[in-house]
Amino acid sequence: MRVLGVDPGLTRCGVGVVEGVPGRPCALIAYYVVYTDPDDELPLRLLHLDRSLTELVAEHRPDSVAVERVFSQHNVRTVMGTAQASGIAVLAGARAGLPVQTYTPSEVKAAVTGSGQADKAQLTAMVTRLLRLPEPPRPADAADALALAICHVWRGGTRSKLAAAADRVRRGGAR
Amino acid sequence: MRVLGVDPGLTRCGVGVVEGVPGRPCALIAYYVVYTDPDDELPLRLLHLDRSLTELVAEHRPDSVAVERVFSQHNVRTVMGTAQASGIAVLAGARAGLPVQTYTPSEVKAAVTGSGQADKAQLTAMVTRLLRLPEPPRPADAADALALAICHVWRGGTRSKLAAAADRVRRGGAR
Repeated sequence: MRVLGVDPGLTRCGVGVVEGVPGRPCALIAYYVVYTDPDDELPLRLLHLDRSLTELVAEHRPDSVAVERVFSQHNVRTVMGTAQASGIAVLAGARAGLPVQTYTPSEVKAAVTGSGQADKAQLTAMVTRLLRLPEPPRPADAADALALAICHVWRGGTRSKLAAAADRVRRGGAR
Repeated sequence: MRVLGVDPGLTRCGVGVVEGVPGRPCALIAYYVVYTDPDDELPLRLLHLDRSLTELVAEHRPDSVAVERVFSQHNVRTVMGTAQASGIAVLAGARAGLPVQTYTPSEVKAAVTGSGQADKAQLTAMVTRLLRLPEPPRPADAADALALAICHVWRGGTRSKLAAAADRVRRGGAR
C-alpha cells in the first residue's frame, strides 16, 4: 500500500510518500516540501501548490492520500492559508480519483509515537527510526508529512480489515 | 467587463455573474448556488464544488473572478470549510488563467451600499435595485455573490484607471 501524506501549508507544504503494510515498518519512497512565495498573490500561490501536488500524485501513483486536518486554534492569519492549502491538497487527491483521509495531529502522533502529546522532536525521531533513515528528513516540514503517511498505512490497514469484516457480516446477513 | 463573483461556502456557495463598467448600473447575466451535502465526505464535497465552479467559469467566460475574503471571527467549525471553499474558488479562477481578486465583506458593502456596516437586508435590496431585478435574488446566498461581482466591476474599473495612470507615469519617467 503506497500512501502520499500532505502536511498542508501555504508557504511550506510537506509531502511524504511511503509504502508498507499495517504493523510493519514502512519504506520511504520520497519526500518534498512545496514552497510558495508569501510575496506572490494568493491565486498564483494556490495554483503553484495545486500543480505541484497534482504532479506528485501523478508521479508516485499512491493508493490513497492522507492530509492533516486543520484546526483554527493557531495564528488566525496563518490558519486561513493553511485551510486553503488543505482544501487544495484534498482536491488534488480527489481529482486523481483516490481515497483521501484526514487525520488530526494527535491521531498522527498517537499512531507513530504511541502518544498523542508527543512533541515535534519525538515525532521526527520516530519517523527517522521507523523509516530507517540515516538522519532526520530535511527540511523538517517533510517529517510531519511522512508521519501522516505512516499513520495512514497503519490505520488504513486496520480500517480495511474492519471494512472487510463488516462486508463479510453484511454478505452473511444477505444469504 | 464581465465578472464572476463567488461567496464561498462548503454547504452553500453563491455564484453571481454581472457585466458592466465602473460607475454605471451592471447587467445581471446569471446567478447560482452550488450546494454540497454535509453528510458527504470532504473530498467529494470539494470535488463537486471544484467541478461546478470550473464549469460556470467555462460557461460564462468572465474577464475576472472576485471571491469574498474569509475571516476566522465566525464559528470555528464553519470557517474551516469556508476557507477551503474559498481556496477552491480562487484556484478555479486561476486555473482558467483569469485574474482573481479577493474582497472583505465590508469592502463589498461599502462599494454597493455606501456603508461598510450595511446589514444583509440592505445589501440584498441594493443588489436588487442596482441590477433592476423584479424581486430579490433567490436563494438569498446568491445576493452576496452578485454584490461581490458588482463591487469588482466598479472597483476594478477604478484600479484599471489607476494602473493606467501609474503606467503613464512610469513610461514618462523612463523617457
